Amino acid sequence: MRGAVIHSPGDIRFETLEDPKILRPTDAIIRTTVTCVCGSDLWPYRGLEPIGEPHPMGHEYVGVVEEVGSEVTAVKPGQFVIGSFATSDNTCANCRNGFQSSCLHREFMSTCQADHVRVPNAQGTLVATPEQPAEEFWPGLLALSDVMGTGWWAADAAEVRPGSTAVVVGDGAVGLCGVIAAKEMGAERIIAMSRHETRQKLAREFGATDIVTERGEDGVARIKDLTDGIGADSVLECVGTPEAMRQALHSARPGGNVGFVGVPHDVAIDGEELFYSHAGLRGGPAPVRRYLPDLVDRVLEGRIAPGKVFDLTLPLEQVAEGYKAMDERRAIKVLLTP
Amino acid sequence: MRGAVIHSPGDIRFETLEDPKILRPTDAIIRTTVTCVCGSDLWPYRGLEPIGEPHPMGHEYVGVVEEVGSEVTAVKPGQFVIGSFATSDNTCANCRNGFQSSCLHREFMSTCQADHVRVPNAQGTLVATPEQPAEEFWPGLLALSDVMGTGWWAADAAEVRPGSTAVVVGDGAVGLCGVIAAKEMGAERIIAMSRHETRQKLAREFGATDIVTERGEDGVARIKDLTDGIGADSVLECVGTPEAMRQALHSARPGGNVGFVGVPHDVAIDGEELFYSHAGLRGGPAPVRRYLPDLVDRVLEGRIAPGKVFDLTLPLEQVAEGYKAMDERRAIKVLLTP
Repeated sequence: MRGAVIHSPGDIRFETLEDPKILRPTDAIIRTTVTCVCGSDLWPYRGLEPIGEPHPMGHEYVGVVEEVGSEVTAVKPGQFVIGSFATSDNTCANCRNGFQSSCLHREFMSTCQADHVRVPNAQGTLVATPEQPAEEFWPGLLALSDVMGTGWWAADAAEVRPGSTAVVVGDGAVGLCGVIAAKEMGAERIIAMSRHETRQKLAREFGATDIVTERGEDGVARIKDLTDGIGADSVLECVGTPEAMRQALHSARPGGNVGFVGVPHDVAIDGEELFYSHAGLRGGPAPVRRYLPDLVDRVLEGRIAPGKVFDLTLPLEQVAEGYKAMDERRAIKVLLTP
Repeated sequence: MRGAVIHSPGDIRFETLEDPKILRPTDAIIRTTVTCVCGSDLWPYRGLEPIGEPHPMGHEYVGVVEEVGSEVTAVKPGQFVIGSFATSDNTCANCRNGFQSSCLHREFMSTCQADHVRVPNAQGTLVATPEQPAEEFWPGLLALSDVMGTGWWAADAAEVRPGSTAVVVGDGAVGLCGVIAAKEMGAERIIAMSRHETRQKLAREFGATDIVTERGEDGVARIKDLTDGIGADSVLECVGTPEAMRQALHSARPGGNVGFVGVPHDVAIDGEELFYSHAGLRGGPAPVRRYLPDLVDRVLEGRIAPGKVFDLTLPLEQVAEGYKAMDERRAIKVLLTP
């Protein structure tokens, strides 16, 4: 098979790789119909995370099952499936509590920018669509495997409620999907923080009622202006930098909630400040599996269209250009077609 | 009037002070029937918080109203009242959201180890008992003004639910009251972390089902042993040190909640660690006012007896000895009688 391999910061290559095989009876092999580049892939690409030896990339996937291990009965060859970037057996104590992304047998997907992929824990991880979905739904379904599932988790962790006010920090694909989620959960006011016109436009299309272009404490001051001086009920932190976390925490009202889903890089939270803020804070890798059946329905019924975050489509072999376009913020998110 | 004044670490004096006066139409003056020393008073006493100029001490109080300002109609002279350590108008946006301890007009009480005290925001702060309570109820009612209200908040912030498992970190008065709260909220298993026999005994009396004497990562390992290897649903952090916070966060299961109510001292939370823990975290000064009517009922009906945390009673003039006894852990909490 062929897929993307990172060699060093900025150096993504499309290479011929060994075909994936069933290694354990709980594995499945799928042929990816579409895959993509994630904002979090940019951390190593930009040299902000160690790379070590050259290795494959990608954790978002949808596709058709080609082969399953002997213990996999939930899906079968020929079915169109979606799975989370974090695999799960869906039976352990953490899975039963709805935190499948902390599954005791979790393995993170990491080789999905390829035409085929091995999925561990396939029985608990993969969700099949009722029938073969039309090609127009592929991007939306693909978005569920990470960015839409993560945006949903951000809104869930931030406890968005009907009638509430939500702030979204971060205008990447996850933040934009967070807007969709906040809207679906009934937020009355959705404030997207963005200074990028294309993304502002998409945020509004997804349901944002206000756009705040200021950053840092100026941005916080604008949020306070819009929320009777006290801050928002819910804040979705979808970046992972110290600045974004600070902005998020300062934007929440006392008793409000911050859901943080950007993988934190050098983020430290001051205990005393968090204490006096009265804000609740919860984050982590999204328990996508918990949401998948519902989100698949929403996509196939056309109620949400998270596939719109893909504003550039490239053949998989041009994956390097996909990284470059996202790194330079020329694209929100790049769809790759094998 | 007479009351306690701190001059420097370890130096508490009982002095004659100016009588409190109504300064604003929203004030009330009460004659304290009992008051007490708080674990948090030990921070400056131990030189771990700056003291500055000599100043009065104490933030816990119950008593009889002597005088009210012209805008105070909710309570009247002669009534027995309880109030929070954090005063609140109970009308602002944060109060309406149930976070009265973040009231936009909040003033922290700070002169209550005295025979009289001025209460700002009296209208929104003070709750009168239906009638003059018998003296036996005074300690329990006094406990509501901080430690029991704070223990309740710890359990509430940690989202204790019927049938759940709760861990209490800290065996001071707040931690012990946290045990009461977890029990009242229906926790099936309540694990108190304590290596002090008197406190273990009281914890069991209040409803603890298990005692863990180990600390740090050994303590965490014991908690994991008791919780199917994944950690507790709810953890009440009632200390405020980096060690206690670490122990609390490591004791929560993925998707569990940590309520932290010990005022944090030099506590920094690593964003990445919190992220992968999947734990929710909420703390702050307890919104005691929200809970007061309910907690007053529970005390007067004899359903809870938080007054048992007072294991040493001294005349107010011996307040210095009260601090000493608590500092040396000879007493859990010292009741002072004016």
